Amino acid sequence: MTSQSAGPGRTGRRGGDSGTREAILDAARKRFAAHGYDGATIRGIAGDAGVDPALVHHFFGTKERLFTAAVRLPVVPGELISSALAAGAADPGGSLGEHLVLTALSAWDVAEIRETFLGLLRSAATSEQALIMLREFVTEAIVGRLAAAADTTDPAQARYRAALVASQVVGLGIARQVLGLEPLAEAGRAELAAAVGPALDRYLTGDLG
Amino acid sequence: MTSQSAGPGRTGRRGGDSGTREAILDAARKRFAAHGYDGATIRGIAGDAGVDPALVHHFFGTKERLFTAAVRLPVVPGELISSALAAGAADPGGSLGEHLVLTALSAWDVAEIRETFLGLLRSAATSEQALIMLREFVTEAIVGRLAAAADTTDPAQARYRAALVASQVVGLGIARQVLGLEPLAEAGRAELAAAVGPALDRYLTGDLG
Repeated sequence: MTSQSAGPGRTGRRGGDSGTREAILDAARKRFAAHGYDGATIRGIAGDAGVDPALVHHFFGTKERLFTAAVRLPVVPGELISSALAAGAADPGGSLGEHLVLTALSAWDVAEIRETFLGLLRSAATSEQALIMLREFVTEAIVGRLAAAADTTDPAQARYRAALVASQVVGLGIARQVLGLEPLAEAGRAELAAAVGPALDRYLTGDLG
Repeated sequence: MTSQSAGPGRTGRRGGDSGTREAILDAARKRFAAHGYDGATIRGIAGDAGVDPALVHHFFGTKERLFTAAVRLPVVPGELISSALAAGAADPGGSLGEHLVLTALSAWDVAEIRETFLGLLRSAATSEQALIMLREFVTEAIVGRLAAAADTTDPAQARYRAALVASQVVGLGIARQVLGLEPLAEAGRAELAAAVGPALDRYLTGDLG
């Protein structure tokens, strides 16, 4: 979530695709930080970077993917959740909750994940704007997607269930990947999926009292 | 976890109890940051503050209480957990898990909790030493206490169960108190205890697969 202080201006030649890509990411970081996830638009970011909005779509596709690249997440959380929901629902060998845990653990299994998480925490804990941006992203891209899997006819209840799932997955990520809390940090993926998956299943579709 | 830059030296008159107390807290913050939670001793902190170790015990009691005051936590987590375990075990009206959730929610219900959590996250995300200190404190004061309630004859398994509980409670705290994730942030205490308590009960004593 850091911004380079000397981004390219609106005019002048780019250093090819890579220079244009960096200029867009730089503009995106600044605009997401200033306007939040909801308030930032592809059009506004393109304007700041001095390029056509079509070029931003060409390089990054959706706003969600652009944000993901801007904050250096190794995966696009919402797309991962959608795949997990589709696969988990179809998989006879494990519950949806277990599938969601395995999906998260796999996504976190990259060398730079700890630094990415620390960067997000640092930004959110330092800047109220960064915190709002993160809240909006989690609300739309994570809770919104998970709510589709929650068993209820009441949309507010579906989002409550999804937020409970998000709270456990965020806590697992912080305990395991950031804090390195043992013996959780060294536990195997299958063991954790068996332990945490049923809790997520209950949050999504069980009796919450 | 901030340190005051101009703490009192080893000599000179103190400004009464309040000056001595601040000098001890200042020394504690520096020593916890430099040596971690496990490595810092009351004796070492007393030496840095230029007071007798007995005075540190007089003001703060235990190392756990001194740490709690140094990082400005509104409560002593381990003591709260011990009370919850004792009361939860004796309470016929709710499960131990529900009691733990209610205890955490009550402890967080103070005006300064968000700033305290943000401060802890900021420190941990900025300094590896602060992260280690936090990990050691959570391991000893929180996981260690919770493990006593876990149902197993294998101590490593008990700590694993306790760490799962900690991951859900930490995630709940971040989602609700820091991120302000709706509709989790506005949910009532009893509602959350009914939703999350059974997950904690299962982590502590249920079948984890």
